[in-house]
Amino acid sequence: MFQAAELGRALKKEAFDELEPELRAEILRAQMALMNSNQSVLVIVEGMDGSGRGSLVNRLYSWFDPRGLETHTFWEPSDEERERPYLWRFWRAMPPKGEIGIFMGGWYRDLVTDALHKRIDHNELERRLQDYVEMERMLALDGVVVLKFWLHLPEDVQRERISKEDATPDDRWGKKGRHRALKLRKRFIRIGERVLRGSDTVLAPWFLVEATDERYRDVTVAQTIVRALREHPSKVGDLDNVAGLLGDSRQAPAIPQVSSAMRTVLDTVDLNATVAKDDYKKQLPQLQSALCKLAWAAWREKRATVVVFEGWDAAGKGGAIRRLASGLDARLYRIVQYAAPTDVERRYPYLWRFWRDLPRDGRIVIFDRSWYGRVLVERVEGFASHHDWQRAYREINAFENELVRHGVRIAKFWLHISPEEQLARFRDREKTPYKQHKITDEDWRNREKWDDYLAAVNEMVFRTSTEYAPWTLVSANDKRHGRIQVLKHMVKLLRDQ
Amino acid sequence: MFQAAELGRALKKEAFDELEPELRAEILRAQMALMNSNQSVLVIVEGMDGSGRGSLVNRLYSWFDPRGLETHTFWEPSDEERERPYLWRFWRAMPPKGEIGIFMGGWYRDLVTDALHKRIDHNELERRLQDYVEMERMLALDGVVVLKFWLHLPEDVQRERISKEDATPDDRWGKKGRHRALKLRKRFIRIGERVLRGSDTVLAPWFLVEATDERYRDVTVAQTIVRALREHPSKVGDLDNVAGLLGDSRQAPAIPQVSSAMRTVLDTVDLNATVAKDDYKKQLPQLQSALCKLAWAAWREKRATVVVFEGWDAAGKGGAIRRLASGLDARLYRIVQYAAPTDVERRYPYLWRFWRDLPRDGRIVIFDRSWYGRVLVERVEGFASHHDWQRAYREINAFENELVRHGVRIAKFWLHISPEEQLARFRDREKTPYKQHKITDEDWRNREKWDDYLAAVNEMVFRTSTEYAPWTLVSANDKRHGRIQVLKHMVKLLRDQ
Repeated sequence: MFQAAELGRALKKEAFDELEPELRAEILRAQMALMNSNQSVLVIVEGMDGSGRGSLVNRLYSWFDPRGLETHTFWEPSDEERERPYLWRFWRAMPPKGEIGIFMGGWYRDLVTDALHKRIDHNELERRLQDYVEMERMLALDGVVVLKFWLHLPEDVQRERISKEDATPDDRWGKKGRHRALKLRKRFIRIGERVLRGSDTVLAPWFLVEATDERYRDVTVAQTIVRALREHPSKVGDLDNVAGLLGDSRQAPAIPQVSSAMRTVLDTVDLNATVAKDDYKKQLPQLQSALCKLAWAAWREKRATVVVFEGWDAAGKGGAIRRLASGLDARLYRIVQYAAPTDVERRYPYLWRFWRDLPRDGRIVIFDRSWYGRVLVERVEGFASHHDWQRAYREINAFENELVRHGVRIAKFWLHISPEEQLARFRDREKTPYKQHKITDEDWRNREKWDDYLAAVNEMVFRTSTEYAPWTLVSANDKRHGRIQVLKHMVKLLRDQ
Repeated sequence: MFQAAELGRALKKEAFDELEPELRAEILRAQMALMNSNQSVLVIVEGMDGSGRGSLVNRLYSWFDPRGLETHTFWEPSDEERERPYLWRFWRAMPPKGEIGIFMGGWYRDLVTDALHKRIDHNELERRLQDYVEMERMLALDGVVVLKFWLHLPEDVQRERISKEDATPDDRWGKKGRHRALKLRKRFIRIGERVLRGSDTVLAPWFLVEATDERYRDVTVAQTIVRALREHPSKVGDLDNVAGLLGDSRQAPAIPQVSSAMRTVLDTVDLNATVAKDDYKKQLPQLQSALCKLAWAAWREKRATVVVFEGWDAAGKGGAIRRLASGLDARLYRIVQYAAPTDVERRYPYLWRFWRDLPRDGRIVIFDRSWYGRVLVERVEGFASHHDWQRAYREINAFENELVRHGVRIAKFWLHISPEEQLARFRDREKTPYKQHKITDEDWRNREKWDDYLAAVNEMVFRTSTEYAPWTLVSANDKRHGRIQVLKHMVKLLRDQ
């Protein structure tokens, strides 16, 4: 999930300078409207050490009218607070209608800290998240616009920031405390994923903000607040038009976009990666034979495997599937292909046809396209309604979780190529007689929607890359590289998990 | 919760005979409409041994057109089923659009059985419930009308039924198995409460059905199915008008009503109970002194107590509170009274003013009217919108749960009197000079809405009588009895919990 916040988003000084005056005017307009409204705003700022939560809030103070703004840091509870139920201190600090309250960490701070230091177990974490979801839902329906920001840094940036802080005189936490954050970084990220996934709702969404560039970070947060004030679904009077809430996935963008040039997780794929022909000839049979043994081992262990292939048209799904299948005993696997649902399939709930094809224990099913069709082609082409594909993310996560809990291993491949490479392959298909059947008008039409698909793939990877079933982005401009990457991942999956 | 299904609801044979032909016609009309629709129906029948789940389904077969109806009993899973994720067998049996599937027990059967025989712990129970809520939500949004019926019997009836079965030749489970059900009855009910509370949603509601009288049971279930087919919120096209879903409490009545003469939980209160004056004079000081000691013990233990008083106008709240307070050291308690919220209070979320008044550890706060105002006066008088009071039940449960987890003890009293007794007291107040201030036009207006309040109180008790904070219905036609009952309960609460 956090890979989506390590894309190097930044805002140049000139762009920032141009943008700032209008942003400030917008902020003040929004604040004025808020004062005369029936709503209040609760901004929760959370994230990793070094991400600049404090300086973000300072900047917000310089942009917002401070009269309607109050910040609360919840350090050690007072006697009064300790002797009341936990949430009491937050209720005390609740902003009244017309005003904005900023909670540094809020109820998430203790939760994350407790989990980080193993003072609570997984069950307790989930239980508390459930409580907070309930609480935030109530607040939202009572007219509080709840906005939660999670500030994230890539590892190298965090390391650098923390080293820099060693040189500053304000040494509240001490050098040890700060460096401890680096040591616990992996654990922190794992907990962060759980927290974000477990408490992200339409009525109280999380916004994952890349905090490497301060200008980008602050503008993103401010713009998101302004936009939320304008569009928040809890807006009084709008409650009758909230069918989208059924999906309980948020309407607001997960990754707020500031600049028009969109960066997506696919930008993290190195499309120049290649595998030389000789290497390929050597590696391919080795990997296939390793895989074959591992598949029989999985059969003996009675553990099933589900392999999902998705990707751009002409990205080489078919070829990759063939190389994978050649490494497997035909008694152990099946390949299933999915096109538009048939009349019979349409009579059942969406996931029904995929459930039907699940492997028995010990077997492998390779899905050539899959349940992700709903958030890819059905989304882009409008075959599914906005509400239906929005809710599909959590339904898919629940579905895959059910498989994993039964012991199924899941591999999910997105075969990525550049638009230029796709064009070259399309042209080649048109020219080559035995490939002509592979190219249709539809392929050309899909190609025109490249950007729509890009947005869909980005959101799909962000929302459905779970701890238990992550996506593998395959660099497939070089076909050999794509195939080897798939096989390597399969060997790793069957060997290590 | 189950006390609401032990009210002796029944349908006389004549009433049944009169009702049946029209019901059957309605059923067939509904089924016809279903066949031509984009929906399917999933009926889950669950409940206690002896409640006649089988004979209910037989009757449904005689009423419905069996061509569109299929029943599935999920006994021991087959090899095929065992080797796939747990829910696979249910997906296999899923009804297609236009048809009705009846699942005996469905996914709840294994859950209840596993919990009953301690094969899973509380956390696992909650986790699985969460999964089923997700699953049912998805089904509902995919066009499956999910209806869940829980059949309940009072203890004496269950005992009688099971003894009767001993005499029949079909001895599938054996005498031992059946009598085991009686032994585990308490545990079964506790688990049932958790299951019902944890998986009751608008999109897939539970209906708690009193199964003592077979005619009442079968008619109730059939009528509920017919009504749901007509009004289910997942009905295609209605999705844009589902703001009520935000509350996630169901629209359909929790306790389906067949006859027009409503029976409520308040009918279980014996209003003839009295305490003789001599007894009263003896018991009152004894209880007060016991309470005083217990309150100091609670102070030493640092455990707070919250006492909620609600009840009919003139039911004697004031008098009962005075007798309770006299038993307490003034340093330990406070009495807070609530009227309509002030301007300042209106600027905060609904529960804010009650949070503010919570006791510190070791202290007692007596709430003379409380957060229940939302589901009582605000509901009946229309001060709160339908959606707002609907969602209040779960918000209140979450709120009280938070208190209990902090160690707070909660007592909730509903002071019950008959309408005749109220009238007598109103007249007395009008006549007695020093009581005249206690009677206003509003009291008379409220009295006219007795039945609306009755429905509100019934639903309140049903939905907010939790294991951790149950309601105590106080028989207060006799004032002395009411006061003694309150004091006794307080002593018990502070002594035993």
